Amino acid sequence: MRGFVVSAAAAALTGLLMLDSSVLASSAEIAIHGAAGNKPPSFWGAYDALFADAKYVDLTHTITPDMPIWRGFGNLTFSPSVNKLSGEAFAYDTDGFVATAYKLTTDQMGTQLDAPAHFNPYFAASDEIPATFALRKLVVIDMSPQAAKNSSYALTVDDILDWENTYGRIPKRSVVFVRSDWSKTWPYVNTDVFPQVSLEAVQFLHLQRDILFHGHEPLDTDMTPNFDSEAWLLKHGYAQAEGVTNLHLVPPTGCLLSTGFPKFIGGVGNYVRYVAICQPSWTYGVAPGTTPEAPLPQYSVPLLWNDAKGHRSRD
Amino acid sequence: MRGFVVSAAAAALTGLLMLDSSVLASSAEIAIHGAAGNKPPSFWGAYDALFADAKYVDLTHTITPDMPIWRGFGNLTFSPSVNKLSGEAFAYDTDGFVATAYKLTTDQMGTQLDAPAHFNPYFAASDEIPATFALRKLVVIDMSPQAAKNSSYALTVDDILDWENTYGRIPKRSVVFVRSDWSKTWPYVNTDVFPQVSLEAVQFLHLQRDILFHGHEPLDTDMTPNFDSEAWLLKHGYAQAEGVTNLHLVPPTGCLLSTGFPKFIGGVGNYVRYVAICQPSWTYGVAPGTTPEAPLPQYSVPLLWNDAKGHRSRD
Repeated sequence: MRGFVVSAAAAALTGLLMLDSSVLASSAEIAIHGAAGNKPPSFWGAYDALFADAKYVDLTHTITPDMPIWRGFGNLTFSPSVNKLSGEAFAYDTDGFVATAYKLTTDQMGTQLDAPAHFNPYFAASDEIPATFALRKLVVIDMSPQAAKNSSYALTVDDILDWENTYGRIPKRSVVFVRSDWSKTWPYVNTDVFPQVSLEAVQFLHLQRDILFHGHEPLDTDMTPNFDSEAWLLKHGYAQAEGVTNLHLVPPTGCLLSTGFPKFIGGVGNYVRYVAICQPSWTYGVAPGTTPEAPLPQYSVPLLWNDAKGHRSRD
Repeated sequence: MRGFVVSAAAAALTGLLMLDSSVLASSAEIAIHGAAGNKPPSFWGAYDALFADAKYVDLTHTITPDMPIWRGFGNLTFSPSVNKLSGEAFAYDTDGFVATAYKLTTDQMGTQLDAPAHFNPYFAASDEIPATFALRKLVVIDMSPQAAKNSSYALTVDDILDWENTYGRIPKRSVVFVRSDWSKTWPYVNTDVFPQVSLEAVQFLHLQRDILFHGHEPLDTDMTPNFDSEAWLLKHGYAQAEGVTNLHLVPPTGCLLSTGFPKFIGGVGNYVRYVAICQPSWTYGVAPGTTPEAPLPQYSVPLLWNDAKGHRSRD
């Protein structure tokens, strides 16, 4: 019986991964609704089987006071939180804890999810983006060879079609990240000249492939005087990711993307976390239970406020 | 053949959901590594089968300037971003876009993931929490009946054992959220008297059940003079969630939890998004493709700055 379960499960998971999705959707529905069991339906078994040993690859920049930011915006300032009753900064020895205050000049910085209200007030703000954005299929299109030759190269429709010739049609409602390797030298990057995504490419991805959103490594989509690609996207109600990193650590197909961001009311950009969830056999990323999680990592050097750096640091 | 695939997939998914996890792990490994196919391993089929029609339930408060905040911290301020070159606020008609500036007095507000460095500088800061936190099994323990009778009720070990008598042992490395219904009247909540989680309960969850982290609806874990529960957790290197909401919209078992937060360097709290991912048959939440996503929702009323409210608004 055990042997049967193993081989049936293997056959079906192979099916899940490789066969016609309409067949799979109906089979999944039967199973999820508990056709053969008496326990309530659950995703927990799927977590054990698929994600407990998966590789989690962070595609997010750390936010620092000195990171590159668009030249029209002022600098960010971090400081220790002050007790408004005493006027003194909270301290471990007097209060038992510390906290951090931030002056953020913009909601367009670091690794982002742009809300279309950034360019068009009739479309969704940050807090109006649905929770369904939390998990998607992740496509990575690599234009780093082109960008290595031409630092302002713009992804074309032909590049997308070439990708599809190798990997198959881009799935509907997936997230498509464009790898250029621009972010590899972050924070020492050129924000004036950078790899782009052409207007035709973003239109193709949305109008011909029905993707959820695309993303790129630079802080803007294109260098045209009127932000042609970015303006078309946002004015037509599409979100987009900016400032994505580590795309050289994820495969072109097969990973899922976890997307999470705090929900500032009426905001037009989102300070976001993107994590790729890839197969256990994937080379990069960290698996649950293989790094300290609970308790979290302990350090020999304390985290203390560093005035020169403008943030807490261990050195 | 199609019939075979459906029934085999159903049998195996039933297995994934209901059978011994060691069997499932090995079967999943066989399948994920592509035993029967020649395509590279992929999670995309699993997304189609499991998550494309799932219900996504947002467990996160919207961040507003007037939301409740611990009394030692000052108020939050939102304002339109100003062009540092011209000194004028960015505007749709002159610049083509708007952006938002924030003065945040603390990294301990709204829906949170506390980093242990909040209380102990030798343990992990916000940016030192691993990417593996992105997806977990979600347990919800309901103490709302007790909290309805006693507004400062503290979850006990017996409450946890009662839950296990009904639903089975709490899975290792899961996230455990404690429902009290305190957040149902947010932002009109009592931050001085609130339902608690006892020290014995958080110790049991971590030391006897090996969970990843626990969470609660109030902004603090307990009302003891020295924050006994919160201090033990954070001083021993455990993260915790605070300000969680909508726990009455998720079942006690079976959902996954998506956790995402921006990575502020040296931060000790995290402005976070928690989304429960539940079965398609679940009553609450929104499924992908059933709400506008790309393009996102369009409104008849524009999102404009509202000085009285201190944020952008459609009214």
